[in-house]
Amino acid sequence: MPEAASAPAARARIGDSEFDRDTAVTRREPGVYDAGLSAGWTIINAVNGGYLLAVLGRALGDALPHPDPFTITAHYLTASRPGPAVVRTEVVRTGRTLSTGQASLFQYDDEGREVERIRVLASYGDLDALPDDVRTSAKPPAIPPIERCFGPDDAPAPVPGSSAIADRLMLKLDPDTLGWALGQPSGKGEMRAWFGLADGRDADPLSLLLAVDALPPTAFELGLSGWVPTVELTVHVRCRPAPGPLRISITTRNLAGGFLEEDAEVWDSDDRLVAQSRQLARARLG
Amino acid sequence: MPEAASAPAARARIGDSEFDRDTAVTRREPGVYDAGLSAGWTIINAVNGGYLLAVLGRALGDALPHPDPFTITAHYLTASRPGPAVVRTEVVRTGRTLSTGQASLFQYDDEGREVERIRVLASYGDLDALPDDVRTSAKPPAIPPIERCFGPDDAPAPVPGSSAIADRLMLKLDPDTLGWALGQPSGKGEMRAWFGLADGRDADPLSLLLAVDALPPTAFELGLSGWVPTVELTVHVRCRPAPGPLRISITTRNLAGGFLEEDAEVWDSDDRLVAQSRQLARARLG
Repeated sequence: MPEAASAPAARARIGDSEFDRDTAVTRREPGVYDAGLSAGWTIINAVNGGYLLAVLGRALGDALPHPDPFTITAHYLTASRPGPAVVRTEVVRTGRTLSTGQASLFQYDDEGREVERIRVLASYGDLDALPDDVRTSAKPPAIPPIERCFGPDDAPAPVPGSSAIADRLMLKLDPDTLGWALGQPSGKGEMRAWFGLADGRDADPLSLLLAVDALPPTAFELGLSGWVPTVELTVHVRCRPAPGPLRISITTRNLAGGFLEEDAEVWDSDDRLVAQSRQLARARLG
Repeated sequence: MPEAASAPAARARIGDSEFDRDTAVTRREPGVYDAGLSAGWTIINAVNGGYLLAVLGRALGDALPHPDPFTITAHYLTASRPGPAVVRTEVVRTGRTLSTGQASLFQYDDEGREVERIRVLASYGDLDALPDDVRTSAKPPAIPPIERCFGPDDAPAPVPGSSAIADRLMLKLDPDTLGWALGQPSGKGEMRAWFGLADGRDADPLSLLLAVDALPPTAFELGLSGWVPTVELTVHVRCRPAPGPLRISITTRNLAGGFLEEDAEVWDSDDRLVAQSRQLARARLG
């Protein structure tokens, strides 16, 4: 292994990191937030959908009386671009343990008019107030140790699809789901990886919204090579993640009619299932 | 088998059935629809969440330029009751192949003020315009033939939880997921059934919204006996269902922190996976 010349001198902390700065929102007036979409979270020219969801999720966490997204759904309407944005929120209902809100992210067209990019509906709660019971039957994904998995830096040539976001992520893919990068897709709709932020910031509920949409699409392992735009993404955050890298498993069961679903499970270092997500995406068949 | 004395003389048709009449909406003004929530789709005193989603889905199908819900998410805010309701819709975006809309269902408090019951965000398309490709790896659930499954009529005593809705459904549960009804829950978060409408009406995209939320909760097989209220329900309709009964498989992997997810898959008589859903529900632990 070469010297870790690019390793940060000190690990970034939650609240003081690239991810926190790039998802920051500033309250312009009650319920309305200014944001700046960073070019650092793009894949080719597209802003990552999970990063965008985190920006909206952060605004809703400020607007609602509860801090954590328990279930959040985004519909992606038009393509976001790096640059200024405004998030408009609405408090739909507030309850004792859950509150529900809605948010829209807008950018501006050439005439300065607002264009809606994403609409979100979510219910928030307080993860720290939940009971500690776990009766799950789910098991963490079988994935080799992190040192036997592969990231963009490990490839002899640039991995297809690598982009600005690759520098912000610690993403190490299970070699069993890397056939696509070698021109030999497995035909199975599976993708597994170790995941973290490159600056060492630990995971929190907001960064889980990024994590579920950060792996290469399962469609690559199904032999498709084109863009797989997300129509809708729903994330359930089930537990505050423990410090350390996450394991993410993504599965597609049904590629049909030009659409596919991607189901993600995110596991923390304590073997807790901390998030589940499902997205509906369009598949461009060759 | 006793004589099928209660079998309807003729099978009801899509567009002319109990389900169609009870989900009917009347346009009051552009985007605003009057509805009447029927007492026929209640479980104990609660109006079934899938039936409610179908009412909202029908209003959106009228308000949007595309007919079929491709992905629809509902957040359940307050308890709906049989009686009058109004659905207010908003067209968020219209595109060539997909359009996105939002809808809220309101009822009235004692002073006649509107109280929001449910908020929905959805993207609609045209199922008949999709290509015919199927590259799915999903397999239909292993479930015994319908004549070896059990419905409320087959129980020696009334099945716990049976209610008005039972008369409207043809619901035959896999005996392997019926332990809860005999006081012997399996401990596995699984529920499987044959599903149809009692009057013989075939399935369509709107009745799939009902189907995904019509089985007893998986929580019963996990040994919980209380009410499992839905916080959020997302349904992907992937294919127009063929005539004939549906097979539905529901799975819970993660019961933790007082919440659980329920994932449903709905298969038609042509072995096509016609809908996938996930809901986040509260579990009342004993």
